[in-house]
Amino acid sequence: MRNFTFYSPTEFVFGRKTEEQVGILLKKYGASKVLIHFGGGSIIKSGLLPRIETLLKAENIKYILFGGAQPNPRSGLVYQGIKLCKRENIDFILAVGGGSAIDSAKAIAAGAKYDGDFWDFFDGTAIIKAAIKIGVILTLPASGSEGSHRSVITKEEGMLKRGAGNEFIRPVFSIINPELTFTLPAYQTAAGIVDMMSHIFERYLTKTPNVDLTDRLCEATLVSIIEAGRKVMDDPYDYEARATLCWSGTIAHNGILGVGRVEDWATHQLEHELSARYDVTHGAGLAVMFPAYMKYALDTDINRFQRLAINVWGVESGSQTPTEIALNGISAMKTFFKKIGMPTSFSEIGALEKDIDFLVSKLFQGKSNNFGAFKSLTPEGARMVYRIACE
Amino acid sequence: MRNFTFYSPTEFVFGRKTEEQVGILLKKYGASKVLIHFGGGSIIKSGLLPRIETLLKAENIKYILFGGAQPNPRSGLVYQGIKLCKRENIDFILAVGGGSAIDSAKAIAAGAKYDGDFWDFFDGTAIIKAAIKIGVILTLPASGSEGSHRSVITKEEGMLKRGAGNEFIRPVFSIINPELTFTLPAYQTAAGIVDMMSHIFERYLTKTPNVDLTDRLCEATLVSIIEAGRKVMDDPYDYEARATLCWSGTIAHNGILGVGRVEDWATHQLEHELSARYDVTHGAGLAVMFPAYMKYALDTDINRFQRLAINVWGVESGSQTPTEIALNGISAMKTFFKKIGMPTSFSEIGALEKDIDFLVSKLFQGKSNNFGAFKSLTPEGARMVYRIACE
Repeated sequence: MRNFTFYSPTEFVFGRKTEEQVGILLKKYGASKVLIHFGGGSIIKSGLLPRIETLLKAENIKYILFGGAQPNPRSGLVYQGIKLCKRENIDFILAVGGGSAIDSAKAIAAGAKYDGDFWDFFDGTAIIKAAIKIGVILTLPASGSEGSHRSVITKEEGMLKRGAGNEFIRPVFSIINPELTFTLPAYQTAAGIVDMMSHIFERYLTKTPNVDLTDRLCEATLVSIIEAGRKVMDDPYDYEARATLCWSGTIAHNGILGVGRVEDWATHQLEHELSARYDVTHGAGLAVMFPAYMKYALDTDINRFQRLAINVWGVESGSQTPTEIALNGISAMKTFFKKIGMPTSFSEIGALEKDIDFLVSKLFQGKSNNFGAFKSLTPEGARMVYRIACE
Repeated sequence: MRNFTFYSPTEFVFGRKTEEQVGILLKKYGASKVLIHFGGGSIIKSGLLPRIETLLKAENIKYILFGGAQPNPRSGLVYQGIKLCKRENIDFILAVGGGSAIDSAKAIAAGAKYDGDFWDFFDGTAIIKAAIKIGVILTLPASGSEGSHRSVITKEEGMLKRGAGNEFIRPVFSIINPELTFTLPAYQTAAGIVDMMSHIFERYLTKTPNVDLTDRLCEATLVSIIEAGRKVMDDPYDYEARATLCWSGTIAHNGILGVGRVEDWATHQLEHELSARYDVTHGAGLAVMFPAYMKYALDTDINRFQRLAINVWGVESGSQTPTEIALNGISAMKTFFKKIGMPTSFSEIGALEKDIDFLVSKLFQGKSNNFGAFKSLTPEGARMVYRIACE
């Protein structure tokens, strides 16, 4: 186990009707003029937005509405949001939605307290030193952004997808009502399931020895996600299964499952190029990339993949070799992804084998020729993973 | 799953040599005059205290030393500490030690910002509304107090052991270096193991349905504690096993294993009377009380005890009945407690069967005639549990 700091100061308010506490929470955290940031019309149609407005009015909190957040959130919207915050003297941003709304809220929050171009934080030329406070009402469990200190934004110019973050952009509170996820389309629900699982895989795939406690916590959460995922696909109104997914998505990414170990995150970077190029939903891209990456990285630690197969996917050990068991685990994962309606190959998301060189060149743009902590990924390695994903 | 708030804002700084960051952390949290509160001479003998003093001097932080914390911390010391804080204008309390030092630090921190008698917080006649900030350097993983917002104090007059707490007394940081636990006596190590396991049992024993995710997280942590506990008893200098115990002890009690469910805590109250009456180490008292309580509560939910036996204690299901499996789990727990040197019956801690009526009368003093959320405990029920503990 390596040294670590675990710091997750977000106040998570979880359960039925908890969005009704939003006015009180905003007051508690000192909000006086709020930017409510959200995506498309679903939260208007569902009546959630008007309800939030009523709750803010009841506490005499001023607000302005700022919609337009979209999957793989874009820099253009962030620039608009920053301008709005500065002009309107916004002192709190309330993100209502999933990772897209939260991530663009985070970028806006940091950019509004910075004189330069907010993209400086994302291309690594500046560090966030202040941000407007952020709160969340979660409607899509997936990104874990409601409990993380990171944001991922795509710059339209060049379609570069990059991450940034530090403590200043961590939400001070996150309201998580599983009921708000009942009406999510099946595809978004499934993509969310893959997204949260992938946050655990990125932590599970480590070379750090003696991290059994966290390994077991990762496995426990993965098993719960798979079980709840199956239930939710059968009955979208299953509160308990929705609740399990919501809380799993949060703890998958608030740090608790990654303490004391070197995490990987190579597969996320491989996927970012897919969603930047084809605008595929992040979770769907991950469903394509994770089986491919795991096959590629199999020889790095066959015991770890064997353990994952047995403890999470329920593969019987029997008389099989460790490699057979590990590969059966990856097959079981692909079967599960397909079962919940996710793609598992390039062709299913409209990605083209002939684009692989382009994807790899984008992937290594501004990076050294070698990344990934579990199995070091070179341009040749990345090409190989993308090729496996074509199968 | 029930509605819940999960809020664990403590900054946990974990790993080798992390105590070297104490000066910087105190600065970060605005300390200018610190009360260093600790127990006996072990942290002086080990050289830890002089090292801490050097680190504070390096950051120009003023401090005064206040030792004397003892197991089952007493109100007398708390009164002294409060007087000292008020006289010396202390603005930060650094607890160095285990649950005793941390719990008395918490009571002092609250009492120093209160005009009345601090015991008001513990007998429920007042609520903590302010406290001096608290930081921790942990030397004994057991109580989980380094990540909790609770304190337990024994009032000498009448030997009443009672708990109190709220967010004001939660440590702002906790430094956890497993190396500092290498030299703990075996008995204290073992009592710590039982203590942290018991914090999970109190959460695991619930009647709230559909909490499988948290059940699995509880089981994962219990299995890790048992495995690491065995290793540490064989080799006290096993860093990885010590680290597993340290982090398990923290997450066992920072709330993450209890979200969404009604917790029990009846066994803790049963034990508090033992440690108040016989001054037995809390963990040792729990090793006596938990097997007895579980036998008493067996019929409340046989499936839960069966699951615990199989998933945590590795009991084979085979052709046994659920009751046999559950009882085998309790036996396995007793065997483990004995193996690590813990008592499992009244006689081993010098407790007397003839005192049971006295213990029960103390237990229900100032309480209604009925408590415990898993199996409701009446005076007759409590007598029965104590009687089972005599076996």
